[in-house]
Amino acid sequence: MSYLDIIHTPEDLRKLSLEELPALCQELRRFIIEQTAEHPGHLGSSLGVVELTVALHYVFDTPHDKLVWDVGHQAYCHKILTGRKEQFSTNRCYGGISGFPRREESEFDAFGTGHSSTSISAVLGMAMAAKLNGEKDRNHIAVIGDGAIGGGMAFEAMNQAAYRDVNMLVILNDNKISIDQSTGAMSKYLLSLTASPAYNRFKNRVWNLFTFKSKSSNRITRFFSKMGNGIKGYLLGGSNLFQSLGYRYFGPADGHDVVYLVKTLQSLKQLPGLQLLHVVTVKGKGLELAEQDQTAYHAPGKFDPETGQIIRPESANQPPKYQDVFGNTLLELARQDEKVVGITPAMATGCSMTIMNDVFPERVFDVGIAEQHAVTLAAGMVTDGLTVFCNIYSSFLQRGYDQVIHDVALQKLPVVLCIDRAGLVGEDGATHQGAFDLAFLRAVPDLIISSPRNEHELRNLMLTAYHNAKSNGLPFVIRYPRGRGVLLEWHNEPHDLTIGQSEMLQDGKDLLVLSLGPLANYVTDAIQKVQEDGITPAHLDVRFLKPLDEQKLLELAERFPVWMTVEDGTETGGLFSAVSEFLESHQLNRIALHHAALPDRFISHGDIPSLYKEVGFDADSLANMMRQALGVHKQ
Amino acid sequence: MSYLDIIHTPEDLRKLSLEELPALCQELRRFIIEQTAEHPGHLGSSLGVVELTVALHYVFDTPHDKLVWDVGHQAYCHKILTGRKEQFSTNRCYGGISGFPRREESEFDAFGTGHSSTSISAVLGMAMAAKLNGEKDRNHIAVIGDGAIGGGMAFEAMNQAAYRDVNMLVILNDNKISIDQSTGAMSKYLLSLTASPAYNRFKNRVWNLFTFKSKSSNRITRFFSKMGNGIKGYLLGGSNLFQSLGYRYFGPADGHDVVYLVKTLQSLKQLPGLQLLHVVTVKGKGLELAEQDQTAYHAPGKFDPETGQIIRPESANQPPKYQDVFGNTLLELARQDEKVVGITPAMATGCSMTIMNDVFPERVFDVGIAEQHAVTLAAGMVTDGLTVFCNIYSSFLQRGYDQVIHDVALQKLPVVLCIDRAGLVGEDGATHQGAFDLAFLRAVPDLIISSPRNEHELRNLMLTAYHNAKSNGLPFVIRYPRGRGVLLEWHNEPHDLTIGQSEMLQDGKDLLVLSLGPLANYVTDAIQKVQEDGITPAHLDVRFLKPLDEQKLLELAERFPVWMTVEDGTETGGLFSAVSEFLESHQLNRIALHHAALPDRFISHGDIPSLYKEVGFDADSLANMMRQALGVHKQ
Repeated sequence: MSYLDIIHTPEDLRKLSLEELPALCQELRRFIIEQTAEHPGHLGSSLGVVELTVALHYVFDTPHDKLVWDVGHQAYCHKILTGRKEQFSTNRCYGGISGFPRREESEFDAFGTGHSSTSISAVLGMAMAAKLNGEKDRNHIAVIGDGAIGGGMAFEAMNQAAYRDVNMLVILNDNKISIDQSTGAMSKYLLSLTASPAYNRFKNRVWNLFTFKSKSSNRITRFFSKMGNGIKGYLLGGSNLFQSLGYRYFGPADGHDVVYLVKTLQSLKQLPGLQLLHVVTVKGKGLELAEQDQTAYHAPGKFDPETGQIIRPESANQPPKYQDVFGNTLLELARQDEKVVGITPAMATGCSMTIMNDVFPERVFDVGIAEQHAVTLAAGMVTDGLTVFCNIYSSFLQRGYDQVIHDVALQKLPVVLCIDRAGLVGEDGATHQGAFDLAFLRAVPDLIISSPRNEHELRNLMLTAYHNAKSNGLPFVIRYPRGRGVLLEWHNEPHDLTIGQSEMLQDGKDLLVLSLGPLANYVTDAIQKVQEDGITPAHLDVRFLKPLDEQKLLELAERFPVWMTVEDGTETGGLFSAVSEFLESHQLNRIALHHAALPDRFISHGDIPSLYKEVGFDADSLANMMRQALGVHKQ
Repeated sequence: MSYLDIIHTPEDLRKLSLEELPALCQELRRFIIEQTAEHPGHLGSSLGVVELTVALHYVFDTPHDKLVWDVGHQAYCHKILTGRKEQFSTNRCYGGISGFPRREESEFDAFGTGHSSTSISAVLGMAMAAKLNGEKDRNHIAVIGDGAIGGGMAFEAMNQAAYRDVNMLVILNDNKISIDQSTGAMSKYLLSLTASPAYNRFKNRVWNLFTFKSKSSNRITRFFSKMGNGIKGYLLGGSNLFQSLGYRYFGPADGHDVVYLVKTLQSLKQLPGLQLLHVVTVKGKGLELAEQDQTAYHAPGKFDPETGQIIRPESANQPPKYQDVFGNTLLELARQDEKVVGITPAMATGCSMTIMNDVFPERVFDVGIAEQHAVTLAAGMVTDGLTVFCNIYSSFLQRGYDQVIHDVALQKLPVVLCIDRAGLVGEDGATHQGAFDLAFLRAVPDLIISSPRNEHELRNLMLTAYHNAKSNGLPFVIRYPRGRGVLLEWHNEPHDLTIGQSEMLQDGKDLLVLSLGPLANYVTDAIQKVQEDGITPAHLDVRFLKPLDEQKLLELAERFPVWMTVEDGTETGGLFSAVSEFLESHQLNRIALHHAALPDRFISHGDIPSLYKEVGFDADSLANMMRQALGVHKQ
């Protein structure tokens, strides 16, 4: 019988003896590997925190004690130990459990995560509330990675938490890597901490001697507590950042020695106040290939559970991913013009800026998890004559919104802002859907906002944005989705487009369909379907949400009494709004307007076909909407 | 003859001898005091950096060398020295110069600012660009305050800048105060640095001896450079945060000794790479009352230039400021319910949360310049049963947008988000106009968005939001403007409103005006004007932008063929959009819709009456719009 069969909640876990925990960890690791091999997910991070997760639930009284996982993609072990083992095969599937902690899923998920660097704020809020509520016995733990702790929001929270008299433990899970290699001073600093031989001698001799062998002694605990700061600071040669900020710093601790972690956490649990425990883990621990190539195994897709070999999906006769078209096109522009540079906040692999980085590393800047900084850095570079392509996922650009307004648009600096993962992203779910960018960007003056319907258009738009930047035009947004395009022959000779100009893809009568972005392809399919019913809609690729091609729309208003907008963004604020405003402003009351867009609710996780069906983006749904718009009832 | 009469550009300044600079500083300080006494502005910060500004322009070759002022309200001296002395009496006035640096205003304003914590990102961008462009002789300087450096964005930039081989100097202007007292670990840490007696001994003995007396010696400079880190770290007892992050740290230096500053900067100019100079200044320096009450003199309004005494505008028979109604109502709720708490990121005085803080300091949390953290902290507190009123200015909430989506709305946590300074703010100008919140919030599912038309309504909405939070409703936004309300008797007995319900203020015929927020009062005036022309519009206070009162609107659609929306937000995405979408979705083609809203461009600074006239919010403009909507031409 396996341990996992008898552990249904952390209470069951706590009945095990300390000596049994390593075997449980082995089981858990095996379970995660086997499950994730078949049902793809975030493998590497979850393998890295098996021991830490077991130790946390073993020592702390969850869910009474509050435990928050930053980002949350490392919480697989947490989910398995908190009653979701049976459902784990539905992880990230449509209708299944989420790949991230969610409050509505379990009382053990104290705070939903997905985006980085939120955990310390959330946990501090809980700890401050507990203090006001008089809940003195409650512990509050945030687990945050070395990449996430470099995010500005985490620093804001660290800054405010320090010196507060709250019961709170920040666990820094240091695996030396976020999705790509961590960058910046924080990561260098952490490396110096863990590499310090003086510190390691100290750790082995003093820590073990005084602490773990006498965990019940208050006198020793006090000594341990005091010792924390002074001696370590001295041994580390005089620069402990966390101590500078007022934290009691402990570590670095081996994050794969579960017994050691349990003893450490038991000691820390007895200490009041605010502490930081630095734990060193290996991303992908226990799967050799994953340990070796941590970026590839961050979310590897399907793989062989025995060898770890990634099973590459057949891609020989498939169109490329949009991100690769971006990456290759960027490289082409960079080859032609040495002033072209790329910036991305920790998404170099995800947006394929690595393609340019391989050739021109000195002109590619991965600034780490720092969206705010990335946008303003781009603005600063533009003032000195560089042509900057700044690539950020749609849902993460929500973090850089003020900078787009205040530093880019207000100063009319022609940054090229490439928004990857726009529209529905699928398995990552509600936190990652690129739903809002059309709405929140359209309100900003002096932005050009575009979306390509296919790979050629992406290349054309990038060239157009490049020339626009060179001629000191306005800031230029290009948004495109996660996943593959539609063209096998994607590598066209790009040409300039006229800013603000739409393109009529198919003329027709009865109905005008206005689409923005790659949903155009579903519209094309839908039009084929309705043609069987004798309907021949015209199809306009709006291409630019801003400026809208008002001249063309005025022309078409003469010919089409029924319109329908199609966009993969919220129904409030995007293309449907823009066209509604246009029709109202021009008193075009004779036109009936329909729309396909994301409904006004958060869209959960699942495969794209299921999600598209749910929100009505599939060709059948679009065809039905066309029929309904014209009052045609299919037999 | 005065120095200021002969200094038209920094080149003129550089012709002065070192010995003449103190007298120039006295003149500048006097000039700023006299000008600001008459033409109100940000007095305290600008008085604090007179010597620093003179020293920077004296030592560095601006505008070839790039100088960026974080936040920028301290740049008065900079503006006066860079050709804008004559225009300085128009500071912050309609059509006059901006109260902040703006690229379009002067080549010496290397980067526009207004919001906090952007300077290091911008300057790093310039420095990295200069390196790529081969501009080796260019210096890059960011001046950032001790409040602003605690903002997450500044940390992101510091983190990335460290270890980069760029020519960049960060000057930390440490006056121990942002608008209110600085909070958090960073401010405590800076205090410890400047208070260290060991360090001060070192500064006096070693720094002067080795550096300034031999500034031309490269050998000594190298020594100085190396010495920077090691000795200081040792003397400071082992925790220099900036050194932890890889900076060469120098200071603290007396920011009011201009000769000393010039010598220091000359030395640093010779050093390559990345440096941080910590300068200690006194906010309000040179005006005794301003030094004593730094919060009151941050932006004191008119005052006596001789005594410094603030000239209080007559307010006996004026309605209260919205912020004070918020502050007093929050206190009333807090008295009734010990679970009520307040959070604000460095706006406690500006939003009058100080009123509650005076009575319940343990339940008011000013988290410093940290909008991202503030929002998620609020969400965390709500999970443990507190009722949180989080107050953030509209334009600064742009910094917390992702947190509103990801941590508040997605989890349906009933935070009460009070947005002060919504709509046009006046003299602070483009960076501070609260133009976008209606648009960017409306796209977010599960938010309640409201705006009161007067003080009673603000109190009613706060009570409604309070009860909504208590009954675990949805997150609740209340947005209201800067400045005074309209009711002398503001202190009503508040009552609950029905969420999503509008209020018909005046029935009529011909035309339906739908207003959101305090522009309702201008609509009332406008309606009086048009009644003289025989027009009797109906006036609906929409009150809730979301959910929109669709039932009422459907009713009214039967009666009114002409509608007009009025809102102090962007014309894209807000109320006009919402009503356009509503009309289109319900195929209400018989209705003609007009709108008054902020046009799709950035609105500059000036007094509110001038700005309202510019954008058509004054009663005359609204009345004209009503007439035009009905095709009535006034004789």
